[in-house]
Amino acid sequence: MEQAPAAPPFSLLPRRLGIDTHHEPVVVLRADSPVVRAEGFEAHARIEVLGDARSIVATLNILRQGELLAPGEVGLSEAAWHRLQPRSDERLRFRFARASDAMSHVRAKVFGGALREGAFEAVIGEIVDGRLSNVEIAAFLVACAGGRMSSGEVTSLTRAMVHAGARMSWPQGVVVDKHCIGGLPGNRTTPIVVSIAAALGLLMPKTSSRAITSPAGTADTLETITRVDLDLAQMRRVVESEGACMVWGGAMNMSPADDLLIRVERMLDLDSEAQLVASVLSKKAAAGATHVVIDIPTGPTAKVRSAQQAQSLLHALQASARALELRLLGLITDGSQPVGRGVGPALEAHDVLRVLQNHADAPDDLRRRALDLAAAVIELGGLESGQAARELAAHSLADGSAWRKFEAICRAQGALREPGVAPFQRPVPAPHTGCVQRIDNRLLARAAKLAGAPHACTAGLLLHVHVGERVQRGQPLFDLHAESQGELDYALDFVRHHPGIVHLDPS
Amino acid sequence: MEQAPAAPPFSLLPRRLGIDTHHEPVVVLRADSPVVRAEGFEAHARIEVLGDARSIVATLNILRQGELLAPGEVGLSEAAWHRLQPRSDERLRFRFARASDAMSHVRAKVFGGALREGAFEAVIGEIVDGRLSNVEIAAFLVACAGGRMSSGEVTSLTRAMVHAGARMSWPQGVVVDKHCIGGLPGNRTTPIVVSIAAALGLLMPKTSSRAITSPAGTADTLETITRVDLDLAQMRRVVESEGACMVWGGAMNMSPADDLLIRVERMLDLDSEAQLVASVLSKKAAAGATHVVIDIPTGPTAKVRSAQQAQSLLHALQASARALELRLLGLITDGSQPVGRGVGPALEAHDVLRVLQNHADAPDDLRRRALDLAAAVIELGGLESGQAARELAAHSLADGSAWRKFEAICRAQGALREPGVAPFQRPVPAPHTGCVQRIDNRLLARAAKLAGAPHACTAGLLLHVHVGERVQRGQPLFDLHAESQGELDYALDFVRHHPGIVHLDPS
Repeated sequence: MEQAPAAPPFSLLPRRLGIDTHHEPVVVLRADSPVVRAEGFEAHARIEVLGDARSIVATLNILRQGELLAPGEVGLSEAAWHRLQPRSDERLRFRFARASDAMSHVRAKVFGGALREGAFEAVIGEIVDGRLSNVEIAAFLVACAGGRMSSGEVTSLTRAMVHAGARMSWPQGVVVDKHCIGGLPGNRTTPIVVSIAAALGLLMPKTSSRAITSPAGTADTLETITRVDLDLAQMRRVVESEGACMVWGGAMNMSPADDLLIRVERMLDLDSEAQLVASVLSKKAAAGATHVVIDIPTGPTAKVRSAQQAQSLLHALQASARALELRLLGLITDGSQPVGRGVGPALEAHDVLRVLQNHADAPDDLRRRALDLAAAVIELGGLESGQAARELAAHSLADGSAWRKFEAICRAQGALREPGVAPFQRPVPAPHTGCVQRIDNRLLARAAKLAGAPHACTAGLLLHVHVGERVQRGQPLFDLHAESQGELDYALDFVRHHPGIVHLDPS
Repeated sequence: MEQAPAAPPFSLLPRRLGIDTHHEPVVVLRADSPVVRAEGFEAHARIEVLGDARSIVATLNILRQGELLAPGEVGLSEAAWHRLQPRSDERLRFRFARASDAMSHVRAKVFGGALREGAFEAVIGEIVDGRLSNVEIAAFLVACAGGRMSSGEVTSLTRAMVHAGARMSWPQGVVVDKHCIGGLPGNRTTPIVVSIAAALGLLMPKTSSRAITSPAGTADTLETITRVDLDLAQMRRVVESEGACMVWGGAMNMSPADDLLIRVERMLDLDSEAQLVASVLSKKAAAGATHVVIDIPTGPTAKVRSAQQAQSLLHALQASARALELRLLGLITDGSQPVGRGVGPALEAHDVLRVLQNHADAPDDLRRRALDLAAAVIELGGLESGQAARELAAHSLADGSAWRKFEAICRAQGALREPGVAPFQRPVPAPHTGCVQRIDNRLLARAAKLAGAPHACTAGLLLHVHVGERVQRGQPLFDLHAESQGELDYALDFVRHHPGIVHLDPS
C-alpha cells in the first residue's frame, strides 16, 4: 500500500470554508501547494484526505489566486468538514482515491451486465459512506434506468438500500403503511389515514419526508401541529402507546441512500421506475411494514403522467413487493388538479384539521381521497373489505374517533398546536369570466414555493377554484400567503408572468 | 418568460474567489441572501446568472458560515468568472436555469431512443457553451456507452463534435494524419512519422494533445524542442512552407467538446468505444485530414487490453470513417511494454532526436515502430505500398532527409532547442538477479508522474531494461529523474511500495 508522507509541506492544516456543496465533500488546495505538484492533482480529481482518526474521499478544487487559504492550509466544504471532523491542529494528508469497488460494478452494469445483490450492496454502501461523487452516482442511476433492471435486480437494490440503514421490527403480524408517489399539491391524506387506521386498532408506524421539490412534505405539514423530529426510541414509544405515529423519517437513518439518489435524479430530471420502486419499498421495508397501500396520482402535470405509466409502475412495485414479502395494494388516483385548498405546510394542515374535525367547510375532495386510501388500508389490514371497509373508515371519521386518535398521537409526539396564518396575503383575481378548464400542478407549486413554502411554514397559497367551476372576472382564483412583503411580491411577479396556472375557458 | 428582479436585494455584486472547479462554473451565494430564500435555491441547484452582456448556467454552492462573502456579493469560480466576465460594479441577477434541450435528448437516449444528428448537435452545443454540469455530461456518456450507439449515431456524434469547433481545409486532395490510441509510455512516434512523411512530400498538418493522464503527451514532448502553441494562422503558414507541422491542438478550438467529454469519462474511468471513435475521428476531420493511420497498442496494461477489443474498436473506427469519407488504416501493435527508454517530456524527446539523427544508441524499438507507421502513412498517401513503402520510410530516415525536415519544421514553428536534463537522478536497482518477465505500463507511468512529469519537463524516468532481458542483482532497472529532491523522494517512495513495476522472474 502506498503511503503519503505525513510531514509538512505534504500535510496541511484544515480550514472550514463554510461552503455547502450539498452532500459531496469538496476540498480546496492551493495551486502552489507541494502536495498538488507532487501528486499531480488537478481540479476535479477525487482524492482521499487522511486525518488522524478518519479519512474521506473528496472532490478537489484548486485555488488559483486570492487569499482564501494561507500556505499550509486546506479548505474544507461543510460536507467534508462534518465527515472528517478534524481538530484545528490536525495535519491532513492527501493521496489519489483508490479505485472504487462500487464503480467497477457500475461499469459492469453500463456494459450490460446483470448485478447481483452483493454488487448493489457495494454501490449503496459507498454512496452512504460518501465515497461516490455525484458524477459517479449519476452513472449508476443512468446505467440502471430505461428498463435495464430486471425485477430481480430491483429487488436486490431494494434489499441493499434497506440493509444500509436502520430497520424496525414490530411484534404484530400486520403492520400497515401508505405511500403517495407524489406530485400533487395539497394531497395531504396521510394524517387522516393514519388517524383512522390507528383508531380502528391497526398498527401504523408512519414516517414521512420533508419537501424536496414540493411546497410541503407531510413532515413539514405535521410540524405546524406537532413535533415530528423524533428519534427511533421516541418513535417506538409513541407507536407502543397509540398504535401509530406520524414522524419525519429523516432522523431515523432508514434507507439513507435514498435521499442521495433522489438528489442526483433531480439534477438529471430523471424518473427511473426501478429507482422509484426501490426507493418506496426500501423505506416501507425499513419501517417494518408488512402491508402497504400506494397512492399513484396520475395526470398531465402530476409526477405520473399517463394511465399506462401508472400501470407499469404498479406492476413493478407489485413484483418486487412480492419478493420482499410485502403485501401491496396500489390505487391509481386522479392527479389532474390539486387536492383541498391549501398548498404549503400550515395551509395544508388547516385542511387536514378541518377534515378530521368534521368542519362544515372541510374540503370534500381531500376527505374523499383520504377515505378511499383508509378503506384500502383497512381492507389490506384484514378488518373489512369492499364497501364495509369504506363505511368503517367514514364512521371513524364521523364519530370523532379518528380526530381523538390524531390528538392522542400528537400529544404522545410532544405537542398539539394550531397552525399559524401568514401575515401577508394577496388575492389573485380571475382576468376574465369563464370556466376553469385546467390547473397546472407544477406552476401552482412553484408559485407557492416562491411565496416562501416550505421554509416559511405559513406561506403558500389558498386555492378557491377547482376544474369545471365558473368564475366571474375579478373573483379570486387563489390567495398568495407569505411571511414577508418581498416574497409576496416575488410570487406575484411569477403569477403575473404565468397566466396558465389556472386556465380559464372564456365560453 | 419569467423575469428576475434587477434591483437589490435580488441582484448581487461579483466577487472572484480564485477557485478552479475545472470547466464547470460554480457560484456561491450566502444562505441569508434574499435571492436564495425567494427563489428557494438550494446547494447543487443549476441556476442562470444574468449579467448585463452575458449569462451563464452555474452550479450553486451556499455559504452557511464564515466571511467568504459580504452581504450583497456573489462568489464566482474561475470558470464562472471567465465565461461571464463581469465588471466589478455589475449587478448580477439569478433564476433557476431553464430546462435544457440537450438533456431531453439525453433522457430519450437513456430510455432507449435512437438520436438523430440534430440531437447530438444540441448536446454537444450545450456542452461547449458550458451549459451542462458534469453530472449531466456523465448521464450523456453512460447513456451512449455499452454498445447503445449504432454506427449511424457514432457518425452523427462525430459530425456534431466537428461542427462545434473550427475546421481546417487544405487545397491538396490527400492530407495524411496519424493517431495513437495511447496508454503506452514512450511510444512517441509522431515527430518521426511526420518528418518522414513531409520529407517525402506528403501533406501532414499534425495537431497533438498534451498529457491528460500520462506522463507526457506529444505536445509536451515537442515543447522541449520547439514552440507548439501556434494559432490557426501560424500553423497554416508552417504547413504551407514545410508541408507539415507538429503543434498543440488545444489552442485551435478543433472539436472543443472532446476535452470536456474526456474529463468526465476519466472521472468515471469509463472507456466507451463510441466516444473514443467520435473523439479520434472528430479531431482528424476537423484538422482536414483525408487519410488517417491509427496505432492501437494492445496489451494487458495498455489502454486496449485484448486483441478482441482492438478488432472491435478498429471495425467501429472504419465504419464511421467511411461515413465521414475518411480513409482509415489501423495497426494493432504490441502494447505489452514501454517503447524507447525515456518516459517524460524531455526524456522522450531525447529518444526521438536520437532516432531522427541516426544515433548508434537510438532505441531500436521506437525506430521500428515509427517506420511501421510511416510505411502505413506512405501507403495510404499513395506513394508506395508494401515493402517498398517501408523501404522508402527507412531511406528517408537513413539519409537524413527526415531529420532535415524535422529541423525545418521546428524552425518554422519558431524554435529548435536541445531538451534539458533533470538535476536530480537516482537509479532503481534490481532487487535480485533474474529475467524481466513483464513491465506494468500503468505503474511505470505513475512513477514518472510522481517524479514530476509532465509539469516538470525534464522529469520522468529512463528505462534500462526490456521484457526478456536478464539482469544482475543491483543492476539499475531504471533511473528516476526529477527537478526537486522532494519529488524524487516521492517517486522513490512509490517505487519501493510497488515492486511489480518491473517484474523479475528469478529463474
